[in-house]
Amino acid sequence: MPDVELSDDGQIVTLISGSGTRTRFHAIWLRDNAWDPETRSAGNGQRLIALRDIPPDLRIDRARIAGSTLTLDFQPEIKSIDYNVDWLLAHGYDNGPGREAGWLAPGTETWDSGLMSAIPLADFNRATADGGVLRNWLSQLRRYGFGKMTGGPVEREALLKIAALFGYVRETNYGRYFEVRTEVNPTNLAYTGLGLQAHTDNPYRDPVPTVQILYCLENSAEGGENMVVDGFAAALRLKAENPAWFDVLSKYCARFEYAGEKGVCLRARRPMIEVSADGELIGVRFNNRSTAAITDVPFDDMATYYAAYRRFGEIIDDPAMEVTFKLTPGECFLVDNTRVLHARKGYSGAGSRWLQGCYADKDGLLSTLASLETEIQEAAE
Amino acid sequence: MPDVELSDDGQIVTLISGSGTRTRFHAIWLRDNAWDPETRSAGNGQRLIALRDIPPDLRIDRARIAGSTLTLDFQPEIKSIDYNVDWLLAHGYDNGPGREAGWLAPGTETWDSGLMSAIPLADFNRATADGGVLRNWLSQLRRYGFGKMTGGPVEREALLKIAALFGYVRETNYGRYFEVRTEVNPTNLAYTGLGLQAHTDNPYRDPVPTVQILYCLENSAEGGENMVVDGFAAALRLKAENPAWFDVLSKYCARFEYAGEKGVCLRARRPMIEVSADGELIGVRFNNRSTAAITDVPFDDMATYYAAYRRFGEIIDDPAMEVTFKLTPGECFLVDNTRVLHARKGYSGAGSRWLQGCYADKDGLLSTLASLETEIQEAAE
Repeated sequence: MPDVELSDDGQIVTLISGSGTRTRFHAIWLRDNAWDPETRSAGNGQRLIALRDIPPDLRIDRARIAGSTLTLDFQPEIKSIDYNVDWLLAHGYDNGPGREAGWLAPGTETWDSGLMSAIPLADFNRATADGGVLRNWLSQLRRYGFGKMTGGPVEREALLKIAALFGYVRETNYGRYFEVRTEVNPTNLAYTGLGLQAHTDNPYRDPVPTVQILYCLENSAEGGENMVVDGFAAALRLKAENPAWFDVLSKYCARFEYAGEKGVCLRARRPMIEVSADGELIGVRFNNRSTAAITDVPFDDMATYYAAYRRFGEIIDDPAMEVTFKLTPGECFLVDNTRVLHARKGYSGAGSRWLQGCYADKDGLLSTLASLETEIQEAAE
Repeated sequence: MPDVELSDDGQIVTLISGSGTRTRFHAIWLRDNAWDPETRSAGNGQRLIALRDIPPDLRIDRARIAGSTLTLDFQPEIKSIDYNVDWLLAHGYDNGPGREAGWLAPGTETWDSGLMSAIPLADFNRATADGGVLRNWLSQLRRYGFGKMTGGPVEREALLKIAALFGYVRETNYGRYFEVRTEVNPTNLAYTGLGLQAHTDNPYRDPVPTVQILYCLENSAEGGENMVVDGFAAALRLKAENPAWFDVLSKYCARFEYAGEKGVCLRARRPMIEVSADGELIGVRFNNRSTAAITDVPFDDMATYYAAYRRFGEIIDDPAMEVTFKLTPGECFLVDNTRVLHARKGYSGAGSRWLQGCYADKDGLLSTLASLETEIQEAAE
C-alpha cells in the first residue's frame, strides 16, 4: 500500500510506493477525473460536469489512504471523493518518458517480408462463431495493420459480411463496394490489368478510409498476386537512413487529387508521413497515381523533399519489405489504410480476375476488439 | 509573356515576369508534374508513372517559351514536354509566405454571434432543383462550417435526403441515423432533456465523423434551442489571449472514451486543438462528457494545460461567440464536426422534442462543391 503526501498549498497529491517511487497528481486533474456518481453517470460512464463546474480556487485539504482507496477532501466544494489507487497509478502522468518523433502506439509492431511465414489469418466460419477467434484476428490486425481471412462464401457482396464482423462500411463515390476487374473505359487505373505500385487508397480524401477489404471471387488469370508493405516500417527505415528525409516528408504537406469521374473532385493536403503533435507515427499516404502538384514545400527544401520521396518509394518497392500472396475465391485481405500499402502484379492472358473491394473504419474495428477483450477477460475472472 | 532562364546544371528553371518577379522550379518537380499523355492518363487524370520511372540523373538541357507554352527538353530521357505557363505560375512554390501556427485554409472565415443575422441558409426544394443554390449553400458550409436548411419534409429519415444532396452517410454504432429524444434508460446523455454544453460529437472516434446533420421532426417543448460556436474562432481567441495556452492544447493529446453501450468501447488520443504539421488549424475536439483521463501531458505542463482547457471552455461558453436558433419541424442544421461545436438548452414541460441525427463526411461535401463550381464555371464560359 503506497503512502500519500499532500503539498502545503493543497495543489499536489503524491503517491509514494514501497520502493520510494513518487507519482504526483494535480488537484484539478484529480477532481476532473473523479468517478463518484455526481461526476460520472453510473449508467454510461459519461462525465456529468464540465470544467466550468469546478471552482477555480480548488484545493485539497486532506488526503488519506485505506486499503486500495485514496480519499481526498476538496475545498471549497466541501466534497470528499474516493479514488482507486491502482486506477490512479495506471493513469499517472508523472515521470513520463521523453519520446522521439516516430514512436509507435503500444500493441503496434512493424514487419517486413518475414511476416510471410506468419500471415495473420482466420477462417470466416470460425471467426463468425467464436468471439475468441475474432478477437485474436482483430488483435493481429491492430498489431500489424494487415490480415487475411479464408473460407468465406464465394458470392457477390460477401465482403460486406467481413465488414459486419467488426464495424461499418464507409460508402463513398465508389459505392458501398466496388468491382475490381478489367473495364473497357476505366475511370480508375485499378480497373485495368496494369500492375499497381504499392499505395494507400484514396489519399485525396479526408478523412481517408481507414480500413480496406479486398475480397476474391475469381482469380484464374496469370499474375494478379497481391503484395502488402508496412508503411510504418518503411517510414522508420527512411528515418534510420536519414532523419532529414523523415523530417521533410512528415513536416510538409503533399497534395492529392482525384477527378476521374463526373461530379467528383476530391482533394486533400496531408503529409506522406503523418506524426501526431507529440510525435506518434500515425499515418502514411503514398500513391503515385493521385499525387497532385506539391506546392507547400519551400523552394530551399524541395530538392531534399524529392530525394526523400524517391528513397521512400525505393524502400516501399524493396522486395525485402513485401509480403506476397495470391488470393483464391472466398479469400480476402484487410489493411489498415492509414499504415499498410497494397499493390498488385499485372495480369493478363486466359482466365479471369474479379475482386470486390470496400472501405470501413478503424473506430469500429478497435471498439469491437476492445469490447471483446473486456468481455473475455470478465468471463475469465 | 514571361522570360525563362535555365541554370547551368539543368536543375532549375526560372520564369521571369514582365515586372521582374522570379519563380523557380526544380527539374524533378517539373518532370513529375508533366501532363503529357505518357505521364498522365488523358481519361481520368491519374499519373501513369511513379517517381522510380524518372531517372535520378535527370536534367533539362533546353527551355523555351512560345505564347503561353513552356517547352522543356529532358535528359537522359530525350523527352520534350510542354507546360502551360499559367498552370505553372498558379502552382509555384517559390517565395511562399512564412506562416504562423493557426493559419486558416483559403475560403475559411471565423465568426461569432454576429453570424446570427446572416445564418447560411437554403430551402430544401430549391437546393434539390437548382445546382447553383446547392453550390452557394455548400460554399457557405465550407466557409463557416455551419448551415441551416429549411422547407424539408416532416417525415422520418428526411435527414438522409439532406446527406444525399452532397455525400454519404457514415454509419456507426449509433446506426445510419439516431433518434434524439428523451429516453428512459439513456445510453447517452444526448437522449435526455438535459442541457448540453457546446461540444463536438464523437471525439472518441478516429476518424471522427466530419459532418453532422440534426433534423427536427417535433419541437413544441419549452426550451431545447440549439446553439453553435465556431471552434476555430474560439481557438484563435485563446491564442490571442495567451499563445502558451493555444500551444499546450495543440501540442499535447487529450484522450476521449465512450463505452456506454454493450459491445462498444471507443477511444481516441488527439489534441483538443489540432494543427497540421505546417501549422494550419484543422480541427477542434471538445466534449466534457467523453474526455477521459489526460495522461500525455508532462507533469510540469499539466497546470498550464488545465488553465488553458478551462479558458477554452469559458470562451466557448461566452454568449458573444454563439449563434442560437430553435428548429421547427422540417428544418435542420449541419456542422463541420471538426470545427463547429453545437449545444442545446435543456427542455421539459408540455410538448415534445424529436430530432433525428446522422453523420456524414466532408470529403463528399467538398467534392460535390468543387464539382459544381467547375461545372457552373464551364457552363458560363
